Amino acid sequence: MAKGKPLILLSNDDGVDGDGLRFIHPYLKKLGRVVVSAPDRERSGTGHSLTLSRPLRIKKIEKDLYAIDGTPTDSVMVAVHGILNKRKPDLLVSGINLGPNLCDDITYSGTVSAAMEGTLLGIPSIAVSLVVRNHKKPKWDVAAEFTVKMAKYVLKNGLPEDTFLNINVPNSKRASADKYAITTQGRRIYEDILLEKIDPRGKPYYWIAGEEGVLRGGDKTDLKAIRRGIISVTPLHLDLTNYNVINQLSNLKL
Amino acid sequence: MAKGKPLILLSNDDGVDGDGLRFIHPYLKKLGRVVVSAPDRERSGTGHSLTLSRPLRIKKIEKDLYAIDGTPTDSVMVAVHGILNKRKPDLLVSGINLGPNLCDDITYSGTVSAAMEGTLLGIPSIAVSLVVRNHKKPKWDVAAEFTVKMAKYVLKNGLPEDTFLNINVPNSKRASADKYAITTQGRRIYEDILLEKIDPRGKPYYWIAGEEGVLRGGDKTDLKAIRRGIISVTPLHLDLTNYNVINQLSNLKL
Repeated sequence: MAKGKPLILLSNDDGVDGDGLRFIHPYLKKLGRVVVSAPDRERSGTGHSLTLSRPLRIKKIEKDLYAIDGTPTDSVMVAVHGILNKRKPDLLVSGINLGPNLCDDITYSGTVSAAMEGTLLGIPSIAVSLVVRNHKKPKWDVAAEFTVKMAKYVLKNGLPEDTFLNINVPNSKRASADKYAITTQGRRIYEDILLEKIDPRGKPYYWIAGEEGVLRGGDKTDLKAIRRGIISVTPLHLDLTNYNVINQLSNLKL
Repeated sequence: MAKGKPLILLSNDDGVDGDGLRFIHPYLKKLGRVVVSAPDRERSGTGHSLTLSRPLRIKKIEKDLYAIDGTPTDSVMVAVHGILNKRKPDLLVSGINLGPNLCDDITYSGTVSAAMEGTLLGIPSIAVSLVVRNHKKPKWDVAAEFTVKMAKYVLKNGLPEDTFLNINVPNSKRASADKYAITTQGRRIYEDILLEKIDPRGKPYYWIAGEEGVLRGGDKTDLKAIRRGIISVTPLHLDLTNYNVINQLSNLKL
């Protein structure tokens, strides 16, 4: 429970100029003091990566608005340990991301990783993504409305220990901030994910692309909710242990 | 079960010239054909990051030895989809990493992420790290011996579905390839992880450092095994859903 005026840390992986961050910023300001610490440029697909090999710079753009020359994870860490002088925010919001963060893709996601880092630092954290595909026009309103609802809830009630939320909002007219489901992380198998091309000098190069493959993971997955036009809220944690196989492997004789 | 001569993909995050990769390479060659696809330089702390914003290049150093100008995840993806023309390896080995990959740190780890990517591509995958600290001299022998044992086991028996192994080997004289435990991922809380310094022009910069904090997670954790001088084998998966709180959150009223 936050005492006095809540402190909200806002980050993303689309960069400090990202449309989704700009859209949600004024809404969150109505709930408390908002400090923005985000990458100085787009950092999609960076996963939970930390910059260890070089120093980081903090650029103050204006009061409570900072651009970091690193990853989303760096931005959160630098905010808490550098900018805020170890005052722990009451809430971390990562987003609103332009594009989905669903199924196994979340392990690559900078948006989700900022929330991971918040969780490691003991901050109740939510990642919010708008499921915009094929360059369609983003409709930020419902995502913003739902983010505010969830932010209010988390500021009041916190989140279960070590748990953060991965929220995906359909980019459709049917979507409503009142229609959401608690979901599980779906599984997806990809196909055809590397394009080979030839550069102007005749040398080959490769570009990572992706095509949606088979979906697994049952009926309660994040992607199933999105396909039904409903907001998906997946509680995640950082424990990757597969407890289901511990007993089986304990009999391992090498 | 591999048919004929097994195909083993070897990667890491210390780069194609990494001592640990060089050390394990000849051992694995005795088990089958080994294709090395690894970053062209050190890529520690890159997490499960993919290079999406620029093309990737593959440099063939010699037969079955490739350097990729990307992350460990890129290296695995490019190997399977580019170099091997979609022939799926029978085993992926990531390592041997110079330094531990324990507790929550694994979410940052390039070594573990290469095994994650292998798992997403349907390859039985193991990540191996030598717990070298404070610039002590690495003792690769036991780690290599254990890797070979585990590689033989996995080539014969496979791994449980969607499961990969995170192996950490103590860097001590007491360590033995016969002493191992099946463990869970420990939790760690960090303190003092950002150093502030002043550059020659008087401007501040920040460097991410780390100090070990409190350990949580019970008696069966990876770190506890290492502290007992025993090899830690943690079965991991890619499902981050916190199933323990699904019911609790299903009553959520926003």
